[in-house]
Amino acid sequence: MRSVIMEEPGKVVVEDRPMPTLLESTDAVIKLAASCICGSDLWPYRGAQPEPVDHQQMGHEYIGEVIEVGDDVKTVKPGDFVVGSFCISCGECATCRDGYPSRCLKAIAAGDGFIGMRSNGTQAEYARIPFADGTLIKTPAYPTAEQIPHLMAASDVLGTGWYAADAAKAGPGKAIVVVGDGAVGLGAVIGAKQLGAEKIIMMSRNPKRQELAKQFGATHVVEERGEEGIAKVLELTDGVGAHGVVEAVGTQQAFDQALGCVRHGGYIGFVGVPHDSSIGTDVLFDKQVHLEGGPAPVRKYLPTLIDLIYKGEIEPGKVFDLVLPIDEAPKGYEAMDQRTATKVLLTM
Amino acid sequence: MRSVIMEEPGKVVVEDRPMPTLLESTDAVIKLAASCICGSDLWPYRGAQPEPVDHQQMGHEYIGEVIEVGDDVKTVKPGDFVVGSFCISCGECATCRDGYPSRCLKAIAAGDGFIGMRSNGTQAEYARIPFADGTLIKTPAYPTAEQIPHLMAASDVLGTGWYAADAAKAGPGKAIVVVGDGAVGLGAVIGAKQLGAEKIIMMSRNPKRQELAKQFGATHVVEERGEEGIAKVLELTDGVGAHGVVEAVGTQQAFDQALGCVRHGGYIGFVGVPHDSSIGTDVLFDKQVHLEGGPAPVRKYLPTLIDLIYKGEIEPGKVFDLVLPIDEAPKGYEAMDQRTATKVLLTM
Repeated sequence: MRSVIMEEPGKVVVEDRPMPTLLESTDAVIKLAASCICGSDLWPYRGAQPEPVDHQQMGHEYIGEVIEVGDDVKTVKPGDFVVGSFCISCGECATCRDGYPSRCLKAIAAGDGFIGMRSNGTQAEYARIPFADGTLIKTPAYPTAEQIPHLMAASDVLGTGWYAADAAKAGPGKAIVVVGDGAVGLGAVIGAKQLGAEKIIMMSRNPKRQELAKQFGATHVVEERGEEGIAKVLELTDGVGAHGVVEAVGTQQAFDQALGCVRHGGYIGFVGVPHDSSIGTDVLFDKQVHLEGGPAPVRKYLPTLIDLIYKGEIEPGKVFDLVLPIDEAPKGYEAMDQRTATKVLLTM
Repeated sequence: MRSVIMEEPGKVVVEDRPMPTLLESTDAVIKLAASCICGSDLWPYRGAQPEPVDHQQMGHEYIGEVIEVGDDVKTVKPGDFVVGSFCISCGECATCRDGYPSRCLKAIAAGDGFIGMRSNGTQAEYARIPFADGTLIKTPAYPTAEQIPHLMAASDVLGTGWYAADAAKAGPGKAIVVVGDGAVGLGAVIGAKQLGAEKIIMMSRNPKRQELAKQFGATHVVEERGEEGIAKVLELTDGVGAHGVVEAVGTQQAFDQALGCVRHGGYIGFVGVPHDSSIGTDVLFDKQVHLEGGPAPVRKYLPTLIDLIYKGEIEPGKVFDLVLPIDEAPKGYEAMDQRTATKVLLTM
């Protein structure tokens, strides 16, 4: 089967690899209906992560049809169309029950915490999905071609953005700032809107992304950054700052922006994979801010997201502005690296 | 009137100072029934804070009788016995309404954010209290001598510990760790117990404080620190860590201890005044921990705390293990600095 491999930073190829098989009785194997390239795939692409990259099978977002299940899988069967998260979850352990399927104790203990650990990457024609019962959600019907990109977005970027908006306590009457205009930030706008936020302020200098943010529900766009950006946000929030801020980049600059825009006693939800950033506890103390972030517990939100997609109430698939067959994945990486594409959908 | 002055780090004297007067129509002046020395007073005492200390009027905890009020004060009058917080709050601005009277916009704008800014310190016979309506709570009756220390503790250490326990999401079925066995940590034990926590684990190597923690509701004591302490906490929490941790010290070591003891998706409430400590956002991301801290919004909790004290259900005044007349305040600082006293009550 065809599989996207990152041989080394900056070098992506597409090769034939062996079909994944069931390793555990709780596994499923799916045939991908589509896959996509994530902003977080750019960190290794740019050589900007501590771990070396060596012929890594890429991809962790996925939707598709179940073709085989282990003996202990009860909730999905061959022929079902499913959406899952990049975080594997048993659904039964203490952290899953606490609402953090993103840190499932059983999956982590099994070496299967994330897609791409023991399982293969999902920028491929087929993939092994561990703990299928706790990880996969069956869709109410086989999706139309139009629904495919929306479900694809739900698998990660929408789910991650939604979690960040939830952690930022988006809700009726609230002013929410989104730092980061990538697909996750745009997903956060959808989340904030659905959760009822009154003002949604997208920080973006990219006209195309600004436009999409507005379509998704952003009420304001701030182009300035740093102190000027903070001043603009204060102007829009009665001088006191936003109730909540989504941080969807992961850099020190983005964290500082988030801290500058939030009001005292406010909330920051952060989902950008952190790179060399830290926060002085004196700043947190002074702002008295609530901080929560991590790999998004997307599984928790999937039933809601799938329902909204099938009802036609959200169209998160609009974040995909480049569609390529899997064999052209290297072009997709290049386009996202150069920011000529926001998010790339790969077809099989 | 007598007032405790820190002339320079390590040098405390008691001097006569002018009586405080009403500066604003929203002020009250109170006659202190008692005062006390706070763990945070030790930072300047030890020369361990960035701002220089120069003849500072000390003290920010207070209870007493109202002797004079400004024209716009409506909820308290001369003769009332009151408890207040070190954070001044109008009760009406956006952050007060959001439940963060500790960051009151009006008080901060007036230069009156904390006791000891425009107002005098409360290790004194009398004190000016700004924004009396939003800051002071009248007690249901004039307190007995026995109730005085309990109300005194409510003014800061109990209220601060309670806030930290609340931020750590103490509640039924939860395992809560308290890092810091000072008066605030001990107050957090009372808070965690009242909020319904199932396991309360106090980290302490001091037999007297361990004993008091147990009286207050601690179910376990861990003497070890660092990796060994974390291992003990994991043993007591099914190998997954505490649901919530109270950090009541402020050092890097204490933050690291808190992060090591909390489970994935758990909560840290921090109230130790931070000193040269920071947290890598990668650690927060990996643990997916909720972090909240700052100057405690004690005012929010005071009605509950006063009620519990008058019902005799909590005895937070037990944290005072040394009582001195105000003229002997220097001895009190020395005893707390040397850790021969947990908390010193000053009588007038």
